[in-house]
Amino acid sequence: MTSEEFRQAGHRIVDWIADYRAKVAQFPVMARTAPGEIRAQLPPSPPDTPETFDAILADLDKIVIRGLSHWQHPSFFGYFPSNGLPSSVLGDYVSTGLGVLGLSWQSSPALTEVEEVTTDWMRQMAGLSDTWKGVIQDTASTCTLLALICAREKSTSYGLSRGGLQSEPRPLIVYASAHSHSSVDKAALLAGFGRENIHLVESDENFAMRADALDARIERDLAQGLQPCAVVATTGTTASTALDPVEDLARVAKKHGLWLHVDAAMAGSAMILPECRWMWKGVEEADSLVLNPHKWLGIAFDCSLYYVRDEQHLVRVMSTNPSYLQTAADAQVRNLRDWGIPLGRRFRALKLWFAIREQGVAALQARLRRDLENAQWLAGQVRATPHWRILAPVVLQTLCIRYEPPGLEGEALDRYTQGWADRVNKSGDAYLTPATLEGRWMVRVSIGSLQTEREHVEALWKLIQKEVS
Amino acid sequence: MTSEEFRQAGHRIVDWIADYRAKVAQFPVMARTAPGEIRAQLPPSPPDTPETFDAILADLDKIVIRGLSHWQHPSFFGYFPSNGLPSSVLGDYVSTGLGVLGLSWQSSPALTEVEEVTTDWMRQMAGLSDTWKGVIQDTASTCTLLALICAREKSTSYGLSRGGLQSEPRPLIVYASAHSHSSVDKAALLAGFGRENIHLVESDENFAMRADALDARIERDLAQGLQPCAVVATTGTTASTALDPVEDLARVAKKHGLWLHVDAAMAGSAMILPECRWMWKGVEEADSLVLNPHKWLGIAFDCSLYYVRDEQHLVRVMSTNPSYLQTAADAQVRNLRDWGIPLGRRFRALKLWFAIREQGVAALQARLRRDLENAQWLAGQVRATPHWRILAPVVLQTLCIRYEPPGLEGEALDRYTQGWADRVNKSGDAYLTPATLEGRWMVRVSIGSLQTEREHVEALWKLIQKEVS
Repeated sequence: MTSEEFRQAGHRIVDWIADYRAKVAQFPVMARTAPGEIRAQLPPSPPDTPETFDAILADLDKIVIRGLSHWQHPSFFGYFPSNGLPSSVLGDYVSTGLGVLGLSWQSSPALTEVEEVTTDWMRQMAGLSDTWKGVIQDTASTCTLLALICAREKSTSYGLSRGGLQSEPRPLIVYASAHSHSSVDKAALLAGFGRENIHLVESDENFAMRADALDARIERDLAQGLQPCAVVATTGTTASTALDPVEDLARVAKKHGLWLHVDAAMAGSAMILPECRWMWKGVEEADSLVLNPHKWLGIAFDCSLYYVRDEQHLVRVMSTNPSYLQTAADAQVRNLRDWGIPLGRRFRALKLWFAIREQGVAALQARLRRDLENAQWLAGQVRATPHWRILAPVVLQTLCIRYEPPGLEGEALDRYTQGWADRVNKSGDAYLTPATLEGRWMVRVSIGSLQTEREHVEALWKLIQKEVS
Repeated sequence: MTSEEFRQAGHRIVDWIADYRAKVAQFPVMARTAPGEIRAQLPPSPPDTPETFDAILADLDKIVIRGLSHWQHPSFFGYFPSNGLPSSVLGDYVSTGLGVLGLSWQSSPALTEVEEVTTDWMRQMAGLSDTWKGVIQDTASTCTLLALICAREKSTSYGLSRGGLQSEPRPLIVYASAHSHSSVDKAALLAGFGRENIHLVESDENFAMRADALDARIERDLAQGLQPCAVVATTGTTASTALDPVEDLARVAKKHGLWLHVDAAMAGSAMILPECRWMWKGVEEADSLVLNPHKWLGIAFDCSLYYVRDEQHLVRVMSTNPSYLQTAADAQVRNLRDWGIPLGRRFRALKLWFAIREQGVAALQARLRRDLENAQWLAGQVRATPHWRILAPVVLQTLCIRYEPPGLEGEALDRYTQGWADRVNKSGDAYLTPATLEGRWMVRVSIGSLQTEREHVEALWKLIQKEVS
């Protein structure tokens, strides 16, 4: 494919995406294909000779699109939003087209420096002090893994440079609430802590971790000869957007010398609204934090920001320095390979840079406020309607709701709840994610797709009332 | 930005990239900017109001492009190539534009199933048996981390579900050669093994790990009460593309019940050439392997393939199953969140699918053979020229060379070597990566950029002869 052929085919791809975005509301939100249905339509072996670009493009329409659940759909209320602002998409197009890599600073200085600047922009937008240094990672799962490895190495005074975790005399303990994201569990297991050393701390009636329970658990563990290592606090849990009391947890962590990691993967976007910053009050006392602009804020996936206070510690834990990566500039620059797991890195800052500039902070704020208002509107409707319950405080854009018809409870209610959520999803008119809270199924309504206006929330409310009846 | 505005701006971005690719040979290969020079041109704070798309595009030309080292340049001979075939770039454009995520299969079935099919295509292209199952990861660093965590959990019978690595009675040992990639070291440290438990095994005169030395080291470690856990064999080391004897190492690993991971990040692309498959003979006895289509093969970064034989083991080690991720289809499908670290995933298979179809296997093979021939041509020139030495077998597309003028040796020769490599890089006419081999500096010439033809290799040979004299 020559440059000219790329130009022509590229215009067609851009047109195809522009059309897709314009008509995405017409597709059923959730894919209706059966397991294996897409696979069965693809040749089992690769072609030996070239296929035409027409043939490839035709397969997008004929095969691929039916196998998509449409995350950019205005009636996508599942999981958390994963918005890709058009300008952010274009920033990513530049990145892929340039095909430059960041191994060391020298391997493309602009890749590193635009990332330094844009992660600092996001720091300012989130109201964080300038003691934080940011770096782009793929996902919050990875950021939390980095955080727990950094905590492990702090607790062991860099045990990795000696016998590793296996030579530690006392088990290291990680603390989180049962409502923390599954990636916290996963990160602790991958980092070698072991399930027995992940201590889940009691929550209060709002699903927030109790600082007094944390303190008591740490004291008990110390008395038993264990070594408390890290606390993960969540600002905006996945099931219910519950808010752990960061300030109180920070006090406990500091008292015992523990690493404090704040998982604000979802709620971090809301921190560009000054009126929301009470939600992570105390964050300045944390050691690390993650927020995901690739969720609600609208930066094309993947763009997860990991902020640390002690960058030297991160670099010491993550660095390698083989001869083939050394350059004369090393002493003066940030070498991003030492700020995470991968050696090679895309120019991911471009999508963040494009979107912030094309939107401006005020427009980003306005959209998030729109979604917060839509959530409050729906909460009002639910509260005012018989047999409907809201099961957790609606502090952000996610509602946890349940329809509780008289006489139904326990497992029968669970089956009923899963049944109507399934009917909504199969209708194709909206997409919701059921989840459990206190052991019982409920339905999450996560508002905040780019195209989601009040009318879509109103239509959803009508739809679910129809499906439960 | 409306769909129409996206369409127009998108065309301009495609044109900009088409122009960039067409004229990339005119830029100095290595960026000439000083540390901080790009950063200083960017506003320290984000804009509150929107900027025009013109302004953003203008900054690409004015600021960003000067800060790039051009990996797609025909005279890029540094590191290893990171080729982005135009068709692969377009596949990635579709992925970013769709903005769908793969958490579970249901969250976009096509994302999972196209990945199943295309990783299986690559398996066939590399001549691997159908006992291997593949999954796309970001980089080989991550794949090797997964491999060592899987090895750790196999050795400990899933110690992560109990007390983790810290409760193991005997230190677990990882074996690799000193010529293995820095990511092996890093992965072992991040996985908690500890530096003392990374045992580097002697190499032979071709920088390949010695199987007899591995066996002897394992026996010695067993006698000392240590627990051998994993061997990492490299097919194509970074400094010199040395080939560890996979078959012999597999025999030793099997004898002692160790996990064998094959790092073919670079050489894996060459396995689409049947005449190259002797290089990893024995690979069918390995437990896991990584190959990077985002290097020489030409799939836009990031696209690293991790293959395992026992997929159930991988899933058991990596899986989490919170309620908000459960779907009715779970029992019948592959949920890719359980095949790696991140929960969210891009639709990365599209770039692989587009490129293989647009090229066809035969054209991919022809390009790789072109590069192998260019490497042999240059090797012939170097061998035939006084005072020049080739320091390692040229089995792939990378040469390790040194100019050794009479009377120069030791550190003086090192300074001389680094000096001329630096002059080449600063000339802007070519880019090379110096590295050490047996403690002495040499210069790597890594051939294989998409646009690199014989004429560029000839020009490089002229250039370096000029710079050494």
